[in-house]
Amino acid sequence: MGVSLNAQELTKVLDLMKAQEQAWNAGDLEGFMIPYENSDSLMFVGSKGITYGWNNTLQRYKTSYPDKASMGELSFTIIKAEQLSPEYIYVMGKWSLKKEKAASGHFTLIWKKRKGLWKIVSDHSS
Amino acid sequence: MGVSLNAQELTKVLDLMKAQEQAWNAGDLEGFMIPYENSDSLMFVGSKGITYGWNNTLQRYKTSYPDKASMGELSFTIIKAEQLSPEYIYVMGKWSLKKEKAASGHFTLIWKKRKGLWKIVSDHSS
Repeated sequence: MGVSLNAQELTKVLDLMKAQEQAWNAGDLEGFMIPYENSDSLMFVGSKGITYGWNNTLQRYKTSYPDKASMGELSFTIIKAEQLSPEYIYVMGKWSLKKEKAASGHFTLIWKKRKGLWKIVSDHSS
Repeated sequence: MGVSLNAQELTKVLDLMKAQEQAWNAGDLEGFMIPYENSDSLMFVGSKGITYGWNNTLQRYKTSYPDKASMGELSFTIIKAEQLSPEYIYVMGKWSLKKEKAASGHFTLIWKKRKGLWKIVSDHSS
């Protein structure tokens, strides 16, 4: 979508996503949620519509994935990652859950840099 | 997600989306597709995965909506529209198709300004 402004910033975001996989695969949903912006303006678009805010998004994950068996083993495949501006990064890719009833889909994330930290401000997953 | 850099640019994008509704509701899929970037780098994420490129995206629409009855009457509801940088605009909202078997869902669009024109470079619809 454009030229990467700074590969180092992209690497930071991709490292955060690797940490998210590890947290998920340790059954740690709070850990998985660390890079989501901790504010009510966070927007998560999923199969059931829009969820606003960090706490509601965590609750949604807890309801959809009540135990480690339902969480399965998460892996992200990055299809496109692009820094749009000094403050914004776009990441589109595939998520896969390895479990008895395997599941997969795609995500479009918008990351925003706030006080030096990259945070997910918008997640559309399907 | 941030302060709008220029309300005039946002207005241009929202006007393009109104024109898209009108084209759709006139049964004109090519017209609807005008603001999509006319290149292979366009990415459309839908229920069947990723479609790359303008022509493939048009074909996908033609297959999913073969006639005016299946297209129904489209309306967009904008939930969040934000200029991320001079070159990028983010729009998240709801699409609804009024027809016998009504359908609705959400979209996350990334618009990019190229040669003075705003084009959709990424569409995640579910």
